[in-house]
Amino acid sequence: MKIIVDAMGGDNAPLAPVEGALRAAEALGVEIILTGPETVIRDCLTKLGKTDLPQGVEIAPASEVITMEDNPARAFKDKPDSSMTVGLNLLKAKKGDAFVSAGSTGALLSAATLLIKRIRGIRRAALAPVVPTANGKMVLIDCGATAEGTPEYLMQFAYMGSYYAQRFLGVENPRVALLNIGAEESKGLELQKQTYALLTEAKRAGRIHFVGNIEGREAITQGVDVLVTDGYTGNIFLKTMEGAAALFSGALKEMLLASTKNKVAALMLKKSIGDFKKRFDSSEVGGTALLGISQPVVKAHGSSNAYAFYNAIRQAKTVAEADIVGDIAANVENMRWERPKPAEKQEEG
Amino acid sequence: MKIIVDAMGGDNAPLAPVEGALRAAEALGVEIILTGPETVIRDCLTKLGKTDLPQGVEIAPASEVITMEDNPARAFKDKPDSSMTVGLNLLKAKKGDAFVSAGSTGALLSAATLLIKRIRGIRRAALAPVVPTANGKMVLIDCGATAEGTPEYLMQFAYMGSYYAQRFLGVENPRVALLNIGAEESKGLELQKQTYALLTEAKRAGRIHFVGNIEGREAITQGVDVLVTDGYTGNIFLKTMEGAAALFSGALKEMLLASTKNKVAALMLKKSIGDFKKRFDSSEVGGTALLGISQPVVKAHGSSNAYAFYNAIRQAKTVAEADIVGDIAANVENMRWERPKPAEKQEEG
Repeated sequence: MKIIVDAMGGDNAPLAPVEGALRAAEALGVEIILTGPETVIRDCLTKLGKTDLPQGVEIAPASEVITMEDNPARAFKDKPDSSMTVGLNLLKAKKGDAFVSAGSTGALLSAATLLIKRIRGIRRAALAPVVPTANGKMVLIDCGATAEGTPEYLMQFAYMGSYYAQRFLGVENPRVALLNIGAEESKGLELQKQTYALLTEAKRAGRIHFVGNIEGREAITQGVDVLVTDGYTGNIFLKTMEGAAALFSGALKEMLLASTKNKVAALMLKKSIGDFKKRFDSSEVGGTALLGISQPVVKAHGSSNAYAFYNAIRQAKTVAEADIVGDIAANVENMRWERPKPAEKQEEG
Repeated sequence: MKIIVDAMGGDNAPLAPVEGALRAAEALGVEIILTGPETVIRDCLTKLGKTDLPQGVEIAPASEVITMEDNPARAFKDKPDSSMTVGLNLLKAKKGDAFVSAGSTGALLSAATLLIKRIRGIRRAALAPVVPTANGKMVLIDCGATAEGTPEYLMQFAYMGSYYAQRFLGVENPRVALLNIGAEESKGLELQKQTYALLTEAKRAGRIHFVGNIEGREAITQGVDVLVTDGYTGNIFLKTMEGAAALFSGALKEMLLASTKNKVAALMLKKSIGDFKKRFDSSEVGGTALLGISQPVVKAHGSSNAYAFYNAIRQAKTVAEADIVGDIAANVENMRWERPKPAEKQEEG
């Protein structure tokens, strides 16, 4: 198993990806290809106290770096020798089994779609982060790879999320729910209503364990295994959750520092607070799988530290080993949908 | 100032609304009309240690109650003698200045729209809850009164939210932002792009202090005064925030009870934890204003206790006194929009 790692992507590059990759090579028994300028990567090795590349780690030279200023749609073409483009081309050439990058999400998405291509029959790739719930974790799909949704996209997300939850979260028969503004079948916009019908059909055929609509609140407090939504709504869901987390942890910190007495109590709670943080720490998961692409690609969070990169590489290994791409490709015939003729637009009241 | 209170709406009715109303009559100097069965309300008075109706509090008899099982769209017609219908008819007849109910949101929305009517020129009423941010509070508009959005609805929500924030939150020049999946002008679906253009126009004309697009995370961590969105997305935002709050407070509680040492620390933090909870407690705000209706209507949360009802009545008083309806009506000419001809649908790729 060989994982290709973009050594230049993310806020903490190149040191964090290089360090995470070295740890992964040591602890997970994976081989690594680091993409980036050789001198820069060798500088990192020196900083990390290594005189040379460890066994099983190699460098694929790449002289350019894609930044947030580059146009996401064409960055990989404009910078053909970037660490991201070089990495994806290596993946395409089967020189490695998966690619991990913390670079621009938009650029990675475009590059993966255009260089590696989608699985035949899959309409859109999806970003599928794993988010915490009151009783575990769930796969959110999509969280923004494609802003607009169609019932077919969402049905495909449901299948892909289900295979991913099976393999990555180890849930045998993942409960798949549709994010909506009420639990009843009639709730939501046309997109949700039509998707509900498609997922009910998939359930009847025994292909997906669809449990119905779920509201944002219950998705978090009761938890399901896969939360299906369009990229726009999924992004709102994810960012709102992150914002609420930041709000509460900020207020909690403030509270614990508010007085000497509180500080003493905080000291007593130190270990527990550490565990509490860990539970909601995205670096524990690693990254976000890009599902629907014909080879494994994992997007690490832009702010990833070495530990997060290590976990993203572990995640990429799981995705590649479990052959989730194969699961999706083998079932793509069940994911087709003929769009009905659009109904007449309603008049504005 | 006379506030009409639905004595039969909400999980804790009739005792909580009656108790909250009596407190409000005493502390806020408002008169109250309680709608509901006279014997039931008098029973509550007895339970609250009152032998008779206090000065300024009266009962408007209503023999029926609208429940969650009733069809929201027609409940007020099917049950013409319900506490909600009677209350709204009193408001319509100008027997009171505002109406407060914790009954079914859908039923209240339909009943208010059809009995009281919208302000002339306003396309849709909106639910505008006040939500906590890292540095204060913001008005979220809409959070689900109307699931589907148009640029015109959202522009009107921006104006209405701005007037409401001025009067209710006391912000002189409210910062209005559009909830989106990125800060750039080009982000989002057609709805957001077109709304962005309309709000930019309103800003140029000096009518709204539009500060641009904002993501869910920054809306909470940086805060604005008015967060504009369609009802579907607003509902997802609000429920996700509630879910995250429940997740964190649950995990916090678990952590504080995890060991004897932690319990001791929790005791030391008792007062601070109380303040912490209060900061995020929706009963502090009261309820959610139903904006766009031609007379003041406030929806109290279904789980409201007496204190929440008291605050909802205080809120209704503010909305009525500040004449937010008048603000909206006086500016409705600026809130018109001619819908351009719809573009050709894009072909599926």
